[in-house]
Amino acid sequence: MKGGVITIGNEILKGRTVNTNAAEIGRVMYFSGYEVFRGIVVPDDPQEIAYAFRECLNVCDVIISSGGLGPTFDDMTIPAFAKAFNLDLKLDDYYYNRIKESFSRLGLPMTEERKKMAMIPENSTPIENNVGSAPGIECTIQGKRVFILPGVPAEMRSMLKVIGKKIKLSDSFYSEKSIVVKGIYESTISPLVKRIMREHGNDVYIKTHPGMENGVSVIEIEVSAKSKREDEAEKNAENVLKEIEEECRKLSNP
Amino acid sequence: MKGGVITIGNEILKGRTVNTNAAEIGRVMYFSGYEVFRGIVVPDDPQEIAYAFRECLNVCDVIISSGGLGPTFDDMTIPAFAKAFNLDLKLDDYYYNRIKESFSRLGLPMTEERKKMAMIPENSTPIENNVGSAPGIECTIQGKRVFILPGVPAEMRSMLKVIGKKIKLSDSFYSEKSIVVKGIYESTISPLVKRIMREHGNDVYIKTHPGMENGVSVIEIEVSAKSKREDEAEKNAENVLKEIEEECRKLSNP
Repeated sequence: MKGGVITIGNEILKGRTVNTNAAEIGRVMYFSGYEVFRGIVVPDDPQEIAYAFRECLNVCDVIISSGGLGPTFDDMTIPAFAKAFNLDLKLDDYYYNRIKESFSRLGLPMTEERKKMAMIPENSTPIENNVGSAPGIECTIQGKRVFILPGVPAEMRSMLKVIGKKIKLSDSFYSEKSIVVKGIYESTISPLVKRIMREHGNDVYIKTHPGMENGVSVIEIEVSAKSKREDEAEKNAENVLKEIEEECRKLSNP
Repeated sequence: MKGGVITIGNEILKGRTVNTNAAEIGRVMYFSGYEVFRGIVVPDDPQEIAYAFRECLNVCDVIISSGGLGPTFDDMTIPAFAKAFNLDLKLDDYYYNRIKESFSRLGLPMTEERKKMAMIPENSTPIENNVGSAPGIECTIQGKRVFILPGVPAEMRSMLKVIGKKIKLSDSFYSEKSIVVKGIYESTISPLVKRIMREHGNDVYIKTHPGMENGVSVIEIEVSAKSKREDEAEKNAENVLKEIEEECRKLSNP
């Protein structure tokens, strides 16, 4: 099963904000058993938001977006999403009252901007926001699950925790382990990595992350193993890592 | 003019690595005068890499990618890009000899994996890598400029510095300034932001970044101003920020 991650916001595109949301979402998807397959970042623009959802729906089974759920003029993810998939927007009484009350307690009136946060597309379920005002949205489109989360990291994170359990696949597990080797070049290890991956078929993936420390090559070798059983994924990753460690020792001391 | 940012690598999608490259590239594009319009992250997969370039070429004038230029089996950006746009790959003698010599100095032979890094698509110009082995690539496709950089941040960064000057638009400048206001809610400021933006037309953009500190609302208000002249962009951003500051003061002490 494939996962797609959408990030909405000019601040991400122009690099004012580093996209930690996408990394956190990818992490949760991966450990929920999904192959994270596509990431799209779009500006606060309804057409581009629609584009991102369509492109991810083409290839992914689960899509999680973050950004654009607040009260400002450029928070437009929900209306753009609703329009793209012909969903009516409806005022959710529960959230309307909740938002009204929370601002009322601060001596502030209900305004159009605050009301906007209680507008929910039809056939959708709001996701509780325990940190801020705007609820998230869960919706099924073309048989695929879409989760729309706020961009504020603390709000996003609180919802992501719940979603991770919700989307967890019961027959797909990943395990990820790594070692660091020094004094060997990536291009030296490369044929070895290729051979070991071929021997293990599609269930093991090896990635090397090269670096330098004081002029000495330092490589992190990362092994991801996939299995229908959690303990098997763990064990496979461990075994492959041991095999690589052994081979690297031979390369260092031929 | 629009800019597109492509990131290639499973490690980014699954959140093992936070996409700081995309942020750094976006930053450079933005301050070179471009509207950063689209970001795509794809796995180490030739079809998906081709997809990313095609999707960005549809809407962007300048595209910068990072990732997938090294010696390992899953470094496939250059061959995938070349295949997607029917470009032959040619061995670059200068880079072949350079890579050969640098490994020879370490007592290591030239291998297929190392040779791979000297393969350059036709109609392309290699970009000097002062930090690692694999050169970057500059190529014009459909009249648009494409830059293909390595994923290792230090290598990417050294090339990006040069590219930033190369792509700098002489008639497009951005200035970005911000202030932090406390004790006012984003939904309170929202109508004010909308009004000021409308008054200034398309050349000013205001974005609010909400947060909380010890139960008190803290908002960073960020003003971006665009102009054909650098000093004008600066001045516009400053003036709008002053206007907002004044209005916020009124909101706090009505």
